[in-house]
Amino acid sequence: MREKLSESRLADIIDQARGKAPADVVVKSVGILDLTSGEVATGDIAIAGDRIVGTHETYHGALEIDGRGLVAVPGFIDSHVHCESTLVSPLEFDRCVVPRGTTTAICDPHEICNVLGITGLKYFLDCAAVTVMDLRVQLSSCVPATHLETSGATLEAADLLPFKHHPKVLGLAEFMNVPGVLAKDPGVLAKLAAFSDVQIDGHSPLLSSYDLNAYIAAGVRNCHETTSAAEAREKLAKGMQILVREGTVSKDLAALAELITTERAPFLSLCTDDRNPLDIAEEGHVDHLIRAAIGRGVRPLDVYRAATWSAARHFGLVDRGLVAPGQRADLVLLEDLATCRVHSVICRGTPVTPDRFRARPDVPLVGPDSVKRAPVSAATFRMPAVGGPVASPVIGIRPGQILTDRREFELAVRDGAVVADLGRDLLKVAVLERHGRHGGVGLGFVTGFGITRGAIASSIGHDSHNICVIGCNDADMATAVNRLIALRGGFVAAVDGNVTAELALPIAGLMSDRPFEEVEQGLRRLRAAVAAMGTPLHEPFLQMAFLALPVIPHLRITDRGLVDVDRFALV
Amino acid sequence: MREKLSESRLADIIDQARGKAPADVVVKSVGILDLTSGEVATGDIAIAGDRIVGTHETYHGALEIDGRGLVAVPGFIDSHVHCESTLVSPLEFDRCVVPRGTTTAICDPHEICNVLGITGLKYFLDCAAVTVMDLRVQLSSCVPATHLETSGATLEAADLLPFKHHPKVLGLAEFMNVPGVLAKDPGVLAKLAAFSDVQIDGHSPLLSSYDLNAYIAAGVRNCHETTSAAEAREKLAKGMQILVREGTVSKDLAALAELITTERAPFLSLCTDDRNPLDIAEEGHVDHLIRAAIGRGVRPLDVYRAATWSAARHFGLVDRGLVAPGQRADLVLLEDLATCRVHSVICRGTPVTPDRFRARPDVPLVGPDSVKRAPVSAATFRMPAVGGPVASPVIGIRPGQILTDRREFELAVRDGAVVADLGRDLLKVAVLERHGRHGGVGLGFVTGFGITRGAIASSIGHDSHNICVIGCNDADMATAVNRLIALRGGFVAAVDGNVTAELALPIAGLMSDRPFEEVEQGLRRLRAAVAAMGTPLHEPFLQMAFLALPVIPHLRITDRGLVDVDRFALV
Repeated sequence: MREKLSESRLADIIDQARGKAPADVVVKSVGILDLTSGEVATGDIAIAGDRIVGTHETYHGALEIDGRGLVAVPGFIDSHVHCESTLVSPLEFDRCVVPRGTTTAICDPHEICNVLGITGLKYFLDCAAVTVMDLRVQLSSCVPATHLETSGATLEAADLLPFKHHPKVLGLAEFMNVPGVLAKDPGVLAKLAAFSDVQIDGHSPLLSSYDLNAYIAAGVRNCHETTSAAEAREKLAKGMQILVREGTVSKDLAALAELITTERAPFLSLCTDDRNPLDIAEEGHVDHLIRAAIGRGVRPLDVYRAATWSAARHFGLVDRGLVAPGQRADLVLLEDLATCRVHSVICRGTPVTPDRFRARPDVPLVGPDSVKRAPVSAATFRMPAVGGPVASPVIGIRPGQILTDRREFELAVRDGAVVADLGRDLLKVAVLERHGRHGGVGLGFVTGFGITRGAIASSIGHDSHNICVIGCNDADMATAVNRLIALRGGFVAAVDGNVTAELALPIAGLMSDRPFEEVEQGLRRLRAAVAAMGTPLHEPFLQMAFLALPVIPHLRITDRGLVDVDRFALV
Repeated sequence: MREKLSESRLADIIDQARGKAPADVVVKSVGILDLTSGEVATGDIAIAGDRIVGTHETYHGALEIDGRGLVAVPGFIDSHVHCESTLVSPLEFDRCVVPRGTTTAICDPHEICNVLGITGLKYFLDCAAVTVMDLRVQLSSCVPATHLETSGATLEAADLLPFKHHPKVLGLAEFMNVPGVLAKDPGVLAKLAAFSDVQIDGHSPLLSSYDLNAYIAAGVRNCHETTSAAEAREKLAKGMQILVREGTVSKDLAALAELITTERAPFLSLCTDDRNPLDIAEEGHVDHLIRAAIGRGVRPLDVYRAATWSAARHFGLVDRGLVAPGQRADLVLLEDLATCRVHSVICRGTPVTPDRFRARPDVPLVGPDSVKRAPVSAATFRMPAVGGPVASPVIGIRPGQILTDRREFELAVRDGAVVADLGRDLLKVAVLERHGRHGGVGLGFVTGFGITRGAIASSIGHDSHNICVIGCNDADMATAVNRLIALRGGFVAAVDGNVTAELALPIAGLMSDRPFEEVEQGLRRLRAAVAAMGTPLHEPFLQMAFLALPVIPHLRITDRGLVDVDRFALV
C-alpha cells in the first residue's frame, strides 16, 4: 500500500521530476547504489515532499545538499525489534537509531503489552504517529507468553482485531506459541484466522520437518529465531523469510552470513530484536549488521538489498527500498559503502537533524505505577529447609546465551533455611509478581552469575516482566527490590544494605523516561557496580531478565515457581 | 493480500501438514525447485484444499500423484496480457493456456472496453470468477487511447473507481497516455490520484531521462514496452519492474535476455501482451518464454523466478510463486527444467483436466451487436482526385513491427478517382467507424502488404476497433466489409466479389464464441487464403489491426483520417 496522493500533489511531483520547477531538496552529484545491479552511478537525487522524484539527471532545488564523494543507499529497515529492549521510549529509540540510518522499524510491543495490555499498544501507536522514522507496530500475538506465569494483561484475538487496519499495523507480531499452533489451541486458531489475510510474523527456534510445515502452512511468514545455516536453509526452502538477527544477547550473523548471497538476498532481512543503547552507541544498529556482514565476506549488494528492498517487499512496503523515483525519500548518505560509515540521513525527504526530534509533539507517558507491590523484607525470600539435604534443581546459565541448563545440587542450609552458597556459586533467585494480581513469589537457585556480594534486581523479566532478583543474601535482595519499587521499576544493585547503582525505568517498569544518552551512562555505572560484585558476565541484568522466559529451554523461574520448559510444567 | 481462513480450515491445514491426517492431494517423490537457491530436492508435496501444506517430507493423501522423474515449479504468471488478442473468450483463453502452466494472468481488457465500456469490464470480471486460473483484471486506464479516433466508450476515473476494491482487481492497467501524464492532463491526474495507493501498470516505449522520472514518480510501477537492454537498464535503475514481452508481433526477449541475471531477476517478469492461438499452439505461452530464455543462455533459476515469484511479489500476490507450505497449490510438473516441457498442471490444488474446464459455469456473451454499421458499397471507398498529381502521404509498414513509416508517393488516378496501384504495392486502406456514432470513414494508402488481388477486412483495429479494410479495388473492399458486418465482426478475405476465408468474432467484434481449436483452424485457413492473395506478410490481419493505433509512430489511419503521430494530429 502506498500513500494516497491528490491531483495537485501529483502535479508538483511531475513538474519537479521533469525539472520544470525546482525540487524541494536535491542531493547533488552523489553516488547512487542501484540495488537491481549493484552498480554505483553518479547523479542528482531530486525530492518533492517525502518522495524521490528524480535520479540520475541534473536537478536544482530549494535546498541543495552536496553529495560529492558520498554514496546514497535506501534507509535501513529493522525487520523485527522490541523497542523496549533499548530501555528508552519509542521516541528516544527514534532519536537514537535514525541518525544511524534506520528509517523504518517493524516493532513488536509485547514487553509493554504484557504489563499494560492495550494501553501499551496504544502508547506505541501514539508514538509511531510522531516519530521521524516510520515505526510499524505489529500486534503482539502471545500475551502472556505461557500459562506458567502471571502477566499484567491478556490479549485475545478480539482485543487485537480493532487495530488490524490501523495505518501503522501490518499484522500479527511474532507468533511465539508454536506448541499452541501445533495443538490447534482454540485461542491460537482464532488469532491465526482473524489475521490470515495479512502479515503474520514468526518465532520458531529449531522448528523443522512436519511441524515447521504446519507452522508455515498456518500462515506464518518469517522467522528471526534461526541460529544455524542448516536451519535457515530448510526454512528458506519452505518459503520463510529469514530475518538475520544480531542483538545484544542473541547474535546469529556469524552463523547465517554464508546465506547472504545474491540468490537468497531477496528472502533475507536484518533485525536487531533486542539491542541495548550501549551496543547501539558502541557498535551501531542496522548499520552494524551491514558492516559486520561485509566484514564476513558478504557482497555489499546482497546485504544492502536484505537490509532495505527485501525487507520492504516482504512486509508489503512497496514505497521504499530503492533509491528511485516514486519511492519514499528515506536515504542514507554513506562515506563508504563497504564500511557502511553513515555521513548523514534523509528521512521522509528532509535531512535528519536534532531539531527534527525536538519538534516532535510529546506523547504522554504510560504505566508510571506499573510496579504494584508493597515493600518486601528479607523474610520474603526465606526458604525453609524441609527434611534432610537432597539434590535440588538449579538453573545453570550459559554466558551470552539465553538457553539455560537444568542442573542439580545439594543446597546449603543455615538456621533451618536454604541459603546461597558463594563458594559453589549457588545464588538465590526470586521472581515477584508485580501486576497487582496475587503477589506470588517464585523462589529458586541459579548458578553461573558469580556474584559474591549483594543482590541485583530488575523489573524487566521476559515476558511477563515480574520483578527478578538474584542475591547472595535475603537482606540485600530485599534492599534491591524495595529500591526498585520506590523507583517505580528499573535496575538496582545493592550491597550490604546500600544501593550501589540504579537505573529507573518508570515507563511500565521497562523503559526510562530520560534521553538515551543518560540511559547509556546509567548502564555503564550499573555495569561497573555489578562487575565489582564479582560477576564475570557482560550483561548480568539481561541474563537475569531471560531467566523468567518459560518458552526457552530448559529450566526457568516465574512468579509461580521453577518451570521445566521441556515438560512445559511447574517443577 | 491472502485468502481469509476459518479456524476449522486452519485445523485441517495443520493436521494435514503434520501428517496427522491424510492430505487431500500428494505429489509423491517429485523434484522441487527451490527458487531461493536454484537447487532441486526430491520429496513429497502435500496439498490441503487449494494450499500447499507440506514439502520435502513424506506424505499420504486421498489422491496421490506419482511425481517420480518430474520437477515441480510454481505456476507461471503472465504479467501483462490482453486476452482479446487470443481471439477467444476469457474462458477459452483459460482452457488454452492453463494446461501449458499459466495459472495466473494479469489482464487488461482494454480492447473490449474500447468497444463496450463498463459492460466489457464486467464481462471480464464475470469470467474471472469462474476461470480455473486466477485471472486478475486491471482497470483499463486509457479508453479511448487518443482523441484522434472514435471509440465505443470512454472510461474516466469515476467510471473505474467502483471497481477499485473488486477482489480480482489490483489497480490500473497500462497507463498508455504518457503525454497526458507529462502534460498534467486533468483527467489523467484524476485517474493517477484515485489509484495512487494501489498498483498502476505502465506502458512507456523509449521513455527516458526526466520524462521517465516523472512518469515513475507519478506512481507507474512497470513497463512491458521496453525493447532494448539499454532502455531496460535505465528503467530498472529507476525502480521499474520490467515485464519482458514475447508476443505474436512484438518480440523483446532477444534484446532483453541478457538482463535476466540473478541480480536482476527479482525486478523482471514475463508477459505475452498479445499472442494469438496459433503461436500458443505452435510455440507455447509463458512456457515458451521460459524455454526461449534458457535457450539464450539464461540460468533456469533466474527465468523461473522471473516467471513466478518476481511477478507475484511485484503485484502483491504473496500467496504464490514458491513451491512451499502456505502457498497456493498452483504447480507445474515438468519433464525437464531446461526445456520447460510441461507434463501436467495442478491449479488451486486440483489436477488440471478437460473436465475442470467443462465444469465451469457459462458466462453470457456480450457485445453480439457491436458492429453498428449498415452495408457499404464500392462508392464508400471512392476517393475523388482533386487537381493534378501531387505527392501524398502513404503509410509504410515494417514487416513484423508495429512501427510504421510516413512515405510519399504520387498516387494513381483512374476515372477521376485515386486508386490502388498494384505495380507499386500501393493499396487503399480505410477505417470505418462502427460504434453507431457518426459513421465516418477514414481513407488512405498503405505500402508493404503486397496484396495483388481482393481485399481483407477486420473488426479489430487497435485500440478503438473500428473496421479496417485494405484492398486492391473498392468493390472487393465492400464485399469484405459487408461480410464482416453480416458476421457481426471478424476477419474476412474477399477476391473478385467472393469471400475466400473468414473468421467470425461476434464477442464485441473482437473474440470468437467458438473453442480455441476452431479458431486456430480458422486462422490457418485465413492465412492460406491471404497468402494466395500475394502478401509476403506472416500476420497481415494483425499488421492491419495496428495501422489504426495512433499512439505508435509514425503515420496511422483512424475513422477520422490519416494521423501524423509525431505531431499527434490529423494530416
